[in-house]
Formats: sequence, structure tokens, C-alpha cells
Amino acid sequence: MRTFRLVIACPDRVGIVAKVSNFLATYNGWITEASHHSDNQNGWFFMRHEIRADSLPFDLAGFRQAFAPIAQEFSMDWRVTDSAQKKRVVLMASRESHCLADLLHRWHSNELDCEIPCVISNHDDLRSMVEWHGIAFEHVPVDPQNKQPAFAEVSRLVEASQADAIVLARYMQILPPQLCQAFAKRVINIHHSFLPSFVGAKPYHQASLRGVKLIGATCHYVTEELDAGPIIEQDVARVTHRDSIEDMVRLGKDVEKRVLARGLRLHLEDRVLVHDNKTVLFD
Amino acid sequence: MRTFRLVIACPDRVGIVAKVSNFLATYNGWITEASHHSDNQNGWFFMRHEIRADSLPFDLAGFRQAFAPIAQEFSMDWRVTDSAQKKRVVLMASRESHCLADLLHRWHSNELDCEIPCVISNHDDLRSMVEWHGIAFEHVPVDPQNKQPAFAEVSRLVEASQADAIVLARYMQILPPQLCQAFAKRVINIHHSFLPSFVGAKPYHQASLRGVKLIGATCHYVTEELDAGPIIEQDVARVTHRDSIEDMVRLGKDVEKRVLARGLRLHLEDRVLVHDNKTVLFD
Amino acid sequence: MRTFRLVIACPDRVGIVAKVSNFLATYNGWITEASHHSDNQNGWFFMRHEIRADSLPFDLAGFRQAFAPIAQEFSMDWRVTDSAQKKRVVLMASRESHCLADLLHRWHSNELDCEIPCVISNHDDLRSMVEWHGIAFEHVPVDPQNKQPAFAEVSRLVEASQADAIVLARYMQILPPQLCQAFAKRVINIHHSFLPSFVGAKPYHQASLRGVKLIGATCHYVTEELDAGPIIEQDVARVTHRDSIEDMVRLGKDVEKRVLARGLRLHLEDRVLVHDNKTVLFD
Amino acid sequence: MRTFRLVIACPDRVGIVAKVSNFLATYNGWITEASHHSDNQNGWFFMRHEIRADSLPFDLAGFRQAFAPIAQEFSMDWRVTDSAQKKRVVLMASRESHCLADLLHRWHSNELDCEIPCVISNHDDLRSMVEWHGIAFEHVPVDPQNKQPAFAEVSRLVEASQADAIVLARYMQILPPQLCQAFAKRVINIHHSFLPSFVGAKPYHQASLRGVKLIGATCHYVTEELDAGPIIEQDVARVTHRDSIEDMVRLGKDVEKRVLARGLRLHLEDRVLVHDNKTVLFD
Repeated sequence: MRTFRLVIACPDRVGIVAKVSNFLATYNGWITEASHHSDNQNGWFFMRHEIRADSLPFDLAGFRQAFAPIAQEFSMDWRVTDSAQKKRVVLMASRESHCLADLLHRWHSNELDCEIPCVISNHDDLRSMVEWHGIAFEHVPVDPQNKQPAFAEVSRLVEASQADAIVLARYMQILPPQLCQAFAKRVINIHHSFLPSFVGAKPYHQASLRGVKLIGATCHYVTEELDAGPIIEQDVARVTHRDSIEDMVRLGKDVEKRVLARGLRLHLEDRVLVHDNKTVLFD
Repeated sequence: MRTFRLVIACPDRVGIVAKVSNFLATYNGWITEASHHSDNQNGWFFMRHEIRADSLPFDLAGFRQAFAPIAQEFSMDWRVTDSAQKKRVVLMASRESHCLADLLHRWHSNELDCEIPCVISNHDDLRSMVEWHGIAFEHVPVDPQNKQPAFAEVSRLVEASQADAIVLARYMQILPPQLCQAFAKRVINIHHSFLPSFVGAKPYHQASLRGVKLIGATCHYVTEELDAGPIIEQDVARVTHRDSIEDMVRLGKDVEKRVLARGLRLHLEDRVLVHDNKTVLFD
Repeated sequence: MRTFRLVIACPDRVGIVAKVSNFLATYNGWITEASHHSDNQNGWFFMRHEIRADSLPFDLAGFRQAFAPIAQEFSMDWRVTDSAQKKRVVLMASRESHCLADLLHRWHSNELDCEIPCVISNHDDLRSMVEWHGIAFEHVPVDPQNKQPAFAEVSRLVEASQADAIVLARYMQILPPQLCQAFAKRVINIHHSFLPSFVGAKPYHQASLRGVKLIGATCHYVTEELDAGPIIEQDVARVTHRDSIEDMVRLGKDVEKRVLARGLRLHLEDRVLVHDNKTVLFD
Repeated sequence: MRTFRLVIACPDRVGIVAKVSNFLATYNGWITEASHHSDNQNGWFFMRHEIRADSLPFDLAGFRQAFAPIAQEFSMDWRVTDSAQKKRVVLMASRESHCLADLLHRWHSNELDCEIPCVISNHDDLRSMVEWHGIAFEHVPVDPQNKQPAFAEVSRLVEASQADAIVLARYMQILPPQLCQAFAKRVINIHHSFLPSFVGAKPYHQASLRGVKLIGATCHYVTEELDAGPIIEQDVARVTHRDSIEDMVRLGKDVEKRVLARGLRLHLEDRVLVHDNKTVLFD
């Protein structure tokens, strides 16, 4: 069922819901899902509606025009999207295949509702797996002494792909600040620890050294500060003294895969709202 | 903060949200929380609002009068409650103390927002613990040959307590059908298995015999059919071959306690809507 | 590191551990892992050792000959395996690809230590995916009116594959009793419910109808009674009133994948001992 | 059933298990539980046996004398305890009652196998609750300007109690280094975060600020460095954007209670071995 997704964040006050739901009722909009959240601490209001597209008398452009006055009245940060317009997601990976293979299989079996114009990697190892899925594989090696040309090429490929989002599926390079800014709230990373524990390199080694009893993974939007962006999803798995670092790496892969897949799914369905470096999830 | 809680279930159609939110906006109602759910399978709509009581120009009676026409128009099954009017909950237990002690401590430390007019038990063992909390303890022994007098006394006590709800905190007797009917959707039980597995007696023995790797507990509303009422909350704990039945009982207690406490909390805050023997939880 | 795995079950009595560890010490065996379990309820004893192969003066045959007298003395049900001799596992699937794709990826990335001589399916849909992994795909359609020829062919393929185990990765046909018997404790199935709830067909539909708050999956050895064999592993995922049956199916897939992969891994490493239709897991 | 618990840590080498199990078999010791662990990374070996006391020909002193030569031969760090000699555990708390009430109830219902000679608190609030359990309550206020006298009194009470262990059940003062040293590996703390995240004060506030999707609790042995001692047990609970800091505090209490109770239980049963600031848990 094709829906429009109306996503709004604005200062909280009386009458927002009434105004928006009146607007929708006026045009006979059939709401299939509605979620609200008032953040009492910072006085901010968040709202998401899914409305059957065939119940409304206009297309996206018409919707935007009709809704604009309300958005202005309430100083809304808002967007409306069409479920029929799939987001275009560029995947980036390095040598580790588990997250990439997981996302590709979900996409291939119609579980992830998006286009994947290409996969970019700094290694050539995963080419065959990607190409079997009928997706272009772009090998962009990164010269440790001079990374700039590689990221210029990445930026070019992303732009040429008309990408709406970038997913770092265990891509082991740090994106340059310009790319983070250009794709703010649209670059999704999976970090293999339960943030804020074990920021940076080799988190399973850090976890083993500290003797934690649970390991975790964190899906977050990338910001310029390493591993410090808004968290979308996290989960953990139990480990024991019997688990070596290699076991942790293996057990962690399962957590990484499902946390990244859940986070990406929420993003694709416009269920993630970012405010104050935190996320509101309307799942 | 004192709130009114407006809880609605009705056949789904366009315009319900607009009508209700208009109503609230007209009276300047400050919505602190709003939740909706459309069940596409059975065409039913569910809605819950919390509204700051001090933002509205009327009391509960006034609210009810003002809202009645809308409720009628949409054939709503509805209620509005006042967070300042604490529900009166009669607890029932037998010999096992873990659930009762847990609820009493939560109540005593202001985590459970209710009145507890009395605790009824078919044994006298837990009297001292209950009375230390300043709560009346009613010992109503049940004669296995003739249970009727005991349940007549239970009914009398419940009525005298002006109870809004009954919680069976490991009460090991089956309530008679009349009491279940009189308190439909208001008798909450904790069953020590992951229903529908292991209905009836000695579920941990059944679980051990089957060799399951997880044990569970289920909080549900009591209906006339044993362990078959609408499920409010469930959870599980991992067990291994090393765990004897006694270990399962012990590990299960922790699951029972938190599942019952969560379920009761949801009920007290009017967050549970029942339809078709299933629950909608607006948590 | 190559190891021998010595797995023993026998009636419990004093001196078993001493006898076995003396035996190993006599031959200078370097124990890398040792696990014991006394089941006090049925008086049975279970033991598993991993011993560095290069620390012992004999090969498997030599080990068996040397150990046989002890095994006889204690009436042991026992086996010793060599980690360097990979088990041969035939995978069977139907149309659903998630479990098969998951196992194939784990195998391809060296996470599952086995050979996969072939994949057998009653449909041809998954051929390309299997063949990309360099594994033979055998399409054996099952005629609902006359299943015998198909299962004769399956038996022939399994035998020709010199299979040590069969994994039903969402294979939607019931294996005939003879095959179950021939591969007793060596056919691993994934059932898409938290057994013993929702035995048989369409468990997610059953789960939705009952309104459970957690769905699950169960990995078990296949016996002649449907979904009643010894349970190896189980896990659950939370669902809410918002989740349709389709959502349950999707969420359940993730549980099925990891439960089957864990169960198979335990089997491959000789960590599962079966007794009285229950399993002892030395993980 | 009364058992002796033999707990050993020593450098790993061939023959330890054989030697120890021979020793036990020689004296006809009936092993009810045995656990081993070889840490390949640091070459250390850990072992725990439970042996039926009535199967052995000696008492603890006799056991110690007979076993001493073996312990010396293998440079063992070892102990043997008698399950019939209950450990004496001093509980310390401040104003928050949830962990203390939980432990007291478990003790009162015979779930925790220990003596509780007294509860020490820097506030008088929880006196009545403690005394209802028949346990002495010691109010030792701490003067922020001069803490030394208070901790001298705490040390005196602990000594007078002949305590084997101290449990900080949300005791909001930092113990002085001398006490930590005197009770090394015997002071158990519950920290209300998933360490190493959110060390120090107000972890739930820190968690809310960072926008994590899971909160946790950590049970650990106290060392001189704050919140950095060996971790015994951890667990987490899911939170959402709807959960205020107060909600996190409430949800966290349930995690704290069960993590502390599990950790203490493991300690009481001599199931925790400490090495390199990490724990081996034989559960």
C-alpha cells in the first residue's frame, strides 16, 4: 500500500495535533499510522503520520504546497515522502563481508525497501558477491599517505548515484568532514561496541581486556566526531570467560548485522527524527 | 503532574483523530502523550491521550458530558480517568511470597501508583510481611471440599474494598466464573510459563520434562477459560541442562516478578486496551 | 589447532573422571577444554574433552583401541572425533531463502567448520544462490500425491554425499520415518515457533491469533513425532500489537537464522549430547 | 546436600586434572559438579569441584592437609570451603531501598545461602525494613568534612561481625582504600551503568544525555580505582525516547536488583575466580 509519510519536529504548544489532523481530515486522508512525542525536557514536539496516498487528492508537490502554511505557523522542521519513491542507498564496505552480505540478502529478498545503485569498497574482495546481486561494485583503493583522491572519487560516485543515504557496512576508513556534512543525518554507521564504551579501533580487544560480560553493537548517524553521532539502535550479546577475542568477533557479527539492518530499516521508512544529537524512533 | 487519560476503541474510519484532537484543542487541552493504532486486520481503531488536567476547563464529569456526543457519533467504547484518582487494587496470594513482596515494595517506594485496600490469602503465612506495610491482611482459607463459602467471603471483601482491580500474585486457587465475569478485564494473573506452553499446574516441571532452553512467565487478564485470557506481558530467562526444576523455579521467580509488575503498571496507567482476546499496549 | 573430541555419556558413579583424566595424562594429552555434567535426576553422567591432537601418540583408530577397555568398564555411550575431519552436511530448503543464505554465508566466511556436499530443494528457486557458492544444487520436486519417489531420491543423494548430518533450513516437507531413523540425532530442523507452543503449520498465524508478546524459534533434532524431538537451542524476539503477521514473519526470520546457526555450530563441534529426549550442551 | 567446594587457579600444564581427580577418587569423593577453564591467552588454568562432604573421609582441615602437597606441586592459588559454613555478609546501603529490599527478601525466603550479621547505612531511613527481617541495623552517618571516624566505625562493625564479604547495595559513599585492600575480592558493588560506560556519579543522567537505547547495571568487585574492579555480572534493559531520566532510574532498578543478586549468589557459592582484573564464572 502506497503511503505518504509526514514527519514533523517543532516547538511544543497546544493545537499542533488538532491542526495537522484537521488538515488531513479536510482532504479525507486515511491515516494508517500516527505517532507523537512531546519531549518535556526540551519543549520539543515530534510527529509522524502515514497516510494512504490514494485517499489524498494530491501528489507530493501538491501536499507540500497545501501544508506549507501550517508548517510555517508552527515553525516546523518537516518533510513528506512517498513510499513509492524508494531511497537510493550507497553501501560502503571493506574486507569483512557479514554486514554487507546481510544487507544484500535482505534487499534481494525484498525485506529492505530501497535502491542500491552501487557498493563502494577500498578492497576488491567482495566484488563477486556484490555483482551476483546485480549491483555495481566500485573499487576505490585508499592510499594511506594521500586519502584525498580516494574520497574525491567516493564523493563523485555518491553524487553520480543520486544517493539519498550512505551506509558504512564495516567500512574501515573514516569519512572526511565535508562528506559527513553534505550527508548529515544520512550516513549510517555500524560500530562494533556498545557505545559510548570502546570508541575507536579494536573494540572487541578493548572489551576482552576489560572483562565485560556483554558485548554490543551500535548503529548511529555519522558526525564529524568519531563514534559520537546520534544513536539509532543498539543491542548486546552475552559472552563468558570461555570466549576468546575471536569468539567475541564472531558473536559480535550477529549483533552488528541485526542492529545495522534494524537501523537502516527505520531510516528508510522515515521513522528516525534527530534532535540534540539524540534520536526519536517511531517504530 | 495530574492528567486525564482518554482511552478509546472504535471501528476505524477517516476523521476520528481530527474530531478528537479538535475537541481537545477547542478546550485548550495540553496533550502530554498520544498513541494511536489501526488494526488493519479487523478494522478497529485504538487511541489513548494523556491531557494535563489543569489545562482543561472541566472535571471528569464535565469531560464526559462534553465528549459524549463524539463518542456516540463514532460508536466508541471509551473511558476517561483521572490520574489523581488512584485505582484500588486487591492483591491475592498463597504461600509463595516473591510476587507479593515485589509488588508491596514497589508500592511502598511509590513506584506503583495505586491504593492497596487489602491482601487476601488462603494461607496465613504472609500476614506479618503485609502488615509491616500497613496493609490489612485477610486470611480466607479455602476448603477443597467446599470452596463456595471462601469465594463468597472473597467477593464480600473485594466489594467492601471498593476494588477496581484484583491481582493474583501467585494465588494458587482458580477464581469462580462469577468473580471473573464481575471483574472482566480487571483480574490480572501471573502464570509461571510462556503461554500458551505449559497451561495449568506445575509448568516448570512440564518445561523441564520437555527440555526447553528458555523458561517464561505470562501476565494476563483472567477469563473463564484457564490461562487463556488476553496476554498483557511476557518475558523469558535462559536455562541450561545444569538447571534442575528447583533452579527453574528460582530463575522463574525473577521473570514472574518483573512481568507481573510491568503488566500491573500498564493496567494502572490505563495503557491496556482489550479486543478479540488480545491486548493493545500503549506504553 | 587440531583436536580430538572425546564425548561420553554413562551411568554416574565415583571414579569416572579420574579414570578418563588418568588415561589422558598417561598419554600426555593436553586438554584444552573439559566439561562434565551429572544429572542427579536420572543418575546419568556426561563428559566432553578436547585434547590437542599433536600431544597424543596415536591417531583416532589408536585412540579408540586404547580407550575401549575404559569405555566398556563404565558402560559408556561414547565417541571420539577429529576436528580435522570436517563433518559433511547436506542442507535442505524450499523457497524461503533466509536460513539457507545465512548458513551459506557463514560457511563461505569460514565460520561454520563443515563440508556442504550439496543442497537439496523441492523447488528450483535457490539454485543460482547455491551455485554461486560453488555448491551442487539438487532439485528434487515432491509430488503431493506420491512422495515416495522424491524421498527415495533424497535418500540416494544423501547417501551418495556420504553425509554425516542433514539440516532442514526451512524445508517445508516432512521427512519419512525411515530417513529420520537412519539419521537419528543427525537431522537438525529449525521450527519457527517457541516450542512446544505452536506445533505444526503456520506458527506465526497461531502466535498472532493468541496475541503473544514474544515470538520464537526452536532448533531441534528431528524424530518421528512432529516438532517433538530434543531441543538444541531456542530464542525469542519481542512483538507488539503493531506487528502484523507479515511483521512477525520478518522478525522471526532473524531469530530462526541465529538459532539454527547456533544449533548447527554446537552439533558440528560435538557439543550436543542427547539423553531422554533432552540435550546436554557443552558450549 | 552438604558439599566441599575446591577452587583452584594455577599455571596451565599437562596433568593437573588427572592429579586432582585421582586425589578425589582415591578418597572416594563423589563429584557433583566439575568445571575447568584453560585461558590460552595467559596460560592460566582454573578449576572448581563440588564434592559430597559425606563421601569424603575427612573434614575441611583434613582435606586441606591431604591436598596441600598437590597444591604446592602445581603452585596453586586454591581454597576449599564447606557449603554448611555459611558466609557472613555485611550489607551496606544509603537511602535507595530497592537493592537492599531485594536481597533481604531473597535471604528471608532462603534463596541466598548466607548469614547477614548486620546492615550498615549512612542514613536511618531503612531501619524498620531491616529490623522486620530480624537483622541488626547500624546507622553510621558520614560527615562530608571528616569521613575518617565513620569509616573507622564501619571497619569496627565489619570486624565485629566476622564478615566474610561486604555488599554495597547502592551505598553512596566511596570506601577508603584500606578497607578495599583488607577485603580484596570480597567487596561487591552494584554500579548503575553498563561499565565501562558512565563511570562515576549520575550514570542515568549521562545515559540520557548520550541517547543510548539500552541502559545497564554492573556487579563488580571493588578495587581502589573507582568502578574499575573485576566485573562479575552485567545486564541491560531497553529504553526509548519516551523514557525520561526518572523512567530510566525506575527501569534500571530492576536491572540492578537482578544483577546484584546474581553476582552475590555466584560469590556465595565460590563460583567466581579473579585473575588479571577479570573473572572466571563457573555457573
